[in-house]
Amino acid sequence: MSHAADQPAGRGASRARANPADEGRSPLIGTLAVIGVGLIGGSFAAALRQASAVGRVLGVGRNADSLAQAESLGLIDSIATPEEAAAQADFILIATPISAVAPMLSRMKPVLRAEAVITDACSTKADVASAARDTLGERAVQFVPGHPIAGAELTGPGAADANLYRGRNVILTPLAQSGGAACGLVRRAWGLCGARVITMDADAHDRVLASVSHVPHFLSSVYMGQVAAAADADTRLALAGSGFRDFTRIAAGSAEVWRDIFLSNRKAVLAELRSVRATLDYAEQVLQASDEAALEAFLERAALARRLWASRSGQS
Amino acid sequence: MSHAADQPAGRGASRARANPADEGRSPLIGTLAVIGVGLIGGSFAAALRQASAVGRVLGVGRNADSLAQAESLGLIDSIATPEEAAAQADFILIATPISAVAPMLSRMKPVLRAEAVITDACSTKADVASAARDTLGERAVQFVPGHPIAGAELTGPGAADANLYRGRNVILTPLAQSGGAACGLVRRAWGLCGARVITMDADAHDRVLASVSHVPHFLSSVYMGQVAAAADADTRLALAGSGFRDFTRIAAGSAEVWRDIFLSNRKAVLAELRSVRATLDYAEQVLQASDEAALEAFLERAALARRLWASRSGQS
Repeated sequence: MSHAADQPAGRGASRARANPADEGRSPLIGTLAVIGVGLIGGSFAAALRQASAVGRVLGVGRNADSLAQAESLGLIDSIATPEEAAAQADFILIATPISAVAPMLSRMKPVLRAEAVITDACSTKADVASAARDTLGERAVQFVPGHPIAGAELTGPGAADANLYRGRNVILTPLAQSGGAACGLVRRAWGLCGARVITMDADAHDRVLASVSHVPHFLSSVYMGQVAAAADADTRLALAGSGFRDFTRIAAGSAEVWRDIFLSNRKAVLAELRSVRATLDYAEQVLQASDEAALEAFLERAALARRLWASRSGQS
Repeated sequence: MSHAADQPAGRGASRARANPADEGRSPLIGTLAVIGVGLIGGSFAAALRQASAVGRVLGVGRNADSLAQAESLGLIDSIATPEEAAAQADFILIATPISAVAPMLSRMKPVLRAEAVITDACSTKADVASAARDTLGERAVQFVPGHPIAGAELTGPGAADANLYRGRNVILTPLAQSGGAACGLVRRAWGLCGARVITMDADAHDRVLASVSHVPHFLSSVYMGQVAAAADADTRLALAGSGFRDFTRIAAGSAEVWRDIFLSNRKAVLAELRSVRATLDYAEQVLQASDEAALEAFLERAALARRLWASRSGQS
């Protein structure tokens, strides 16, 4: 993806956009806290700044270099601890690996402002929902789980892009406890980022995403690992072309983030892999038998499905 | 890929480039015949025209619409039968599905000019080599099998691009019979297209390409077919993002072309798939066991290998 290069979230541009709101009506969100200021969190902050929808942005994270970079890029106004962020923020986005969500909510809960709204950007939702219910208790009314479906081959604050979410889907999976006002604010914030907001059941989300996101990543990593482990890996990789490039691009993603996604959505991913193996068995049998007609029909079905998706989705 | 849009191979541009050669020294190739005027053949013609390396281009093909389009785009000067092309051409590129190569060589052989050089652009080389040996006999001295490693998600003359081969690898796998002059001319022609020319043994080529090209295509088609066959395919596909887009892009390729590739390279593809299955078995066992450390280590090896490839190859 080239969006980071297309429109860097530089200090000058984002600050200039924030000023009119300061001078006129107050922004949608007075103080935003972003927990994990990388591609996802940084782009959210940049998009809301560009929409003049945020007053002040606090950044929270484990990595001091990333926080310093986010500050120097103007993505955040200042660096905060989780407790400082919780005590000051009107809106909190948690954009960390899934396993960090529950510990983060535990640290923030005692000092969380009563009117604050919290959401997250994790790729699985059932685990996040139960972490929120278990950790927040009665404060779960303030929490609305969410998942922006936006690319993440690039990582870190340097990849943040105010236009990352434009035209992308963001799925919200509200808890039974989530308050209407909280849902409304989260929906509005993503809408101001240019996203299309969809509401789904958390389990349905996890099953669908196992299929269209987690399994492709798993297979891409398996394949990349297999090629790299070959005795003649260097020769192979020297002759790899654009098909290889696209097929393996997702395998470069963060191992920590994807470890959490696979573990968090283990059952659904394993179920989908069983189904993929059944299709692989069929295709291999057809090839083994040199069955020309069946092989072509199989390839044609996949090609037509992919071309139809491209024309419907507007993505090539 | 966007190269077709970046630089359309229009009539005006290519004709203008050909003129200086006509007026001054004679071009490298007097009459070029391209058998199959799609992305691969059309781009070869356009690249040689741009380099003022070709006098006249004849186009041969099964599809009258494609030939008419190639002519109106200025990729070819006129349409010819295989026999007409063989009787006139100094250089012949066969850019058809693999199964069409032997019948085409049989038709051309009786009228082939003694000084003509023939090459092909097929994705497997052992089958093409034996087809050439069996069909051409003593004329095999004129044949040099080749394989340009360049993207083919787009098809047809409209996708042809004079810069498609710039910086790409082209692998030649000369027959024992291939003449030195023929090898030299094929090498020079690809060089003028901007390609890096590599010579390899045909079997080694087929094993390496089974790994880095054919297996990714097979897996991408298997996965795409599995998703499209699901009862809730529409919901899944509506929520597919950029990872899905890249992982499945190759599955949109021509079913006929890929049927031939898989059948032609069946043993090597099946051997590689066995190795991929062994890696998949391992990764699934680790996930099944919720082994956090092993899962992260597995993902990290794949991610590092992919990032290293990106930095070495200059492709992201």
